[in-house]
Amino acid sequence: MNPLTIFADPMLGESAAALLRSDTASHTLLTPAKPAASVLAQAEPDPEFARAEIAFGQPHLECLRAAEKLKWLQVSSASFTRYDTPEFRAFAKVRGLIVTNSSEVYAQACAEHVFSFMLAHARMLPQALASRAPNGSPEWLGLRAASRSLHGQTVLILGFGVIARHLVKLLAPFETKLIAMRRTPRGDEGIPVVTTRDLPAAMAEADHVINILPDNAESRNFVNDELFAAMKPGAVFHNIGRGSTVDQDALLRALRSEKIAAAWLDVTEPEPLPDDHPLRREAHCFITPHIAGGHHAEDVTLVKHFLTNLRRFENGEPLVDRVI
Amino acid sequence: MNPLTIFADPMLGESAAALLRSDTASHTLLTPAKPAASVLAQAEPDPEFARAEIAFGQPHLECLRAAEKLKWLQVSSASFTRYDTPEFRAFAKVRGLIVTNSSEVYAQACAEHVFSFMLAHARMLPQALASRAPNGSPEWLGLRAASRSLHGQTVLILGFGVIARHLVKLLAPFETKLIAMRRTPRGDEGIPVVTTRDLPAAMAEADHVINILPDNAESRNFVNDELFAAMKPGAVFHNIGRGSTVDQDALLRALRSEKIAAAWLDVTEPEPLPDDHPLRREAHCFITPHIAGGHHAEDVTLVKHFLTNLRRFENGEPLVDRVI
Repeated sequence: MNPLTIFADPMLGESAAALLRSDTASHTLLTPAKPAASVLAQAEPDPEFARAEIAFGQPHLECLRAAEKLKWLQVSSASFTRYDTPEFRAFAKVRGLIVTNSSEVYAQACAEHVFSFMLAHARMLPQALASRAPNGSPEWLGLRAASRSLHGQTVLILGFGVIARHLVKLLAPFETKLIAMRRTPRGDEGIPVVTTRDLPAAMAEADHVINILPDNAESRNFVNDELFAAMKPGAVFHNIGRGSTVDQDALLRALRSEKIAAAWLDVTEPEPLPDDHPLRREAHCFITPHIAGGHHAEDVTLVKHFLTNLRRFENGEPLVDRVI
Repeated sequence: MNPLTIFADPMLGESAAALLRSDTASHTLLTPAKPAASVLAQAEPDPEFARAEIAFGQPHLECLRAAEKLKWLQVSSASFTRYDTPEFRAFAKVRGLIVTNSSEVYAQACAEHVFSFMLAHARMLPQALASRAPNGSPEWLGLRAASRSLHGQTVLILGFGVIARHLVKLLAPFETKLIAMRRTPRGDEGIPVVTTRDLPAAMAEADHVINILPDNAESRNFVNDELFAAMKPGAVFHNIGRGSTVDQDALLRALRSEKIAAAWLDVTEPEPLPDDHPLRREAHCFITPHIAGGHHAEDVTLVKHFLTNLRRFENGEPLVDRVI
């Protein structure tokens, strides 16, 4: 096909950058004068962007508006928060712009991350790693007695996308009872799905609630006092979606009242959570610094995912992780 | 069948004790004057033991010798270390004594425990839970880059028994390459098996080495300098078997030289490891206090397992977890 002009702004290591260059050699590859600080960060607006037919990264909205030749944007994050507005969707529709994201790049790592949370909780790892309790002591007996197998437990997933699909696979050997909450069930989930209307009843059953909701106008403070109140006493709450989807004051109340046994969060609002934030002082609140999707050589995975879609784009085939 | 005399010495909670009493009501149940401190500990010798036809717990060898009517011993631990000697095996043979252990009771929990170790390592949980690195910072990028998916990794299991079988099931969705080391391969393992002779070559391939060896004369210091030297650089060593099977000085050298990336131990020698033990000061040595088999209401699981075998014994059926 005709050479295309591709603007790619993610910060890439040497191997990933070399791979991108070699596999786009038949096209024109533009990169920003000042690359972004990370694959998830937004680079500064770049005048060259106006020439792009394909964009890969986290371009500014104003750049997108000015790029009149743009046909396809591949966002370099698992969500597309920055673009998930009615205005952007309308803009993309008018322009005939295809939008994909990089969900698949981070999905396995995200699923493994929340799975590690679930197992660390099941096996009392934070407490056990800090303990020197002798065999037979009350502390030792308490640790053993508090460990609960994931086998046969009920797991409720808020937000059913590619991460949830990976998680469902990982959980299969545990014979858990799985339920998903999805704004618009599509019937292809492979597990029972509820909508927001039936969510409180599902919350009441779940031993683990896994929040993977993206950040958008409808999801702000979605997990609130009412939903925590609906949870099964002693359940565990996990968040690997976006911090904004949880009312953190409500979470704090749920932890302090021991309504829930623990919270495992990879995302908070803000990030990082300040040292003096009350959630930092909760013994059963465990926080990782938004690394769920991270993995060895993720920039290479990111570029490979883009290149897979580029080959599909060249051949007029449907793109993976298409969101608009 | 005729009533049997059963001597049961494990320390049991109220529910487990009630279950044992009700389901052995057609027999004579004897319990020790001074019960053991835990299900794994040995009770004091009890003169009543001499009457036992069935023993359930951790009886003293001297008591077993005196119990001339004894037909079946169910050891209340996953291993039967205390009894795994040529002398005891000869004694059991002469007496026609059937010996079972309680592997199945602890197997799922043990498999979940080491699985939680593997995932905690894969996701850098100890480091990530302690980090407040902002998005895009070198520490944050380092954490993300250090996380390695279990997907497609090679896992070598030393000691293939009921725990290994559970672990193999849990690992299935990760499409790992699995290898087991077994003194005497039986051909029913379902995964490739090597003997000690071919172990170094298998060690060189493994990203995770899982030690589940029991404690006996042949397994003392089994994992030594030579085996650590054979390991793949940067591999992770786990031990949920017995502390005595690892040469801890060799382990320390392997950690200090960064030959291995980390050690995750549920068992050590002695237990607990003293506060001033050098392994306690290794940043990449993570120790839980011998709780791998522990789980909520484990005494109930233990009693249920004994009762399953009692029904089988009454009916002349083969017993589960038979070791002699």
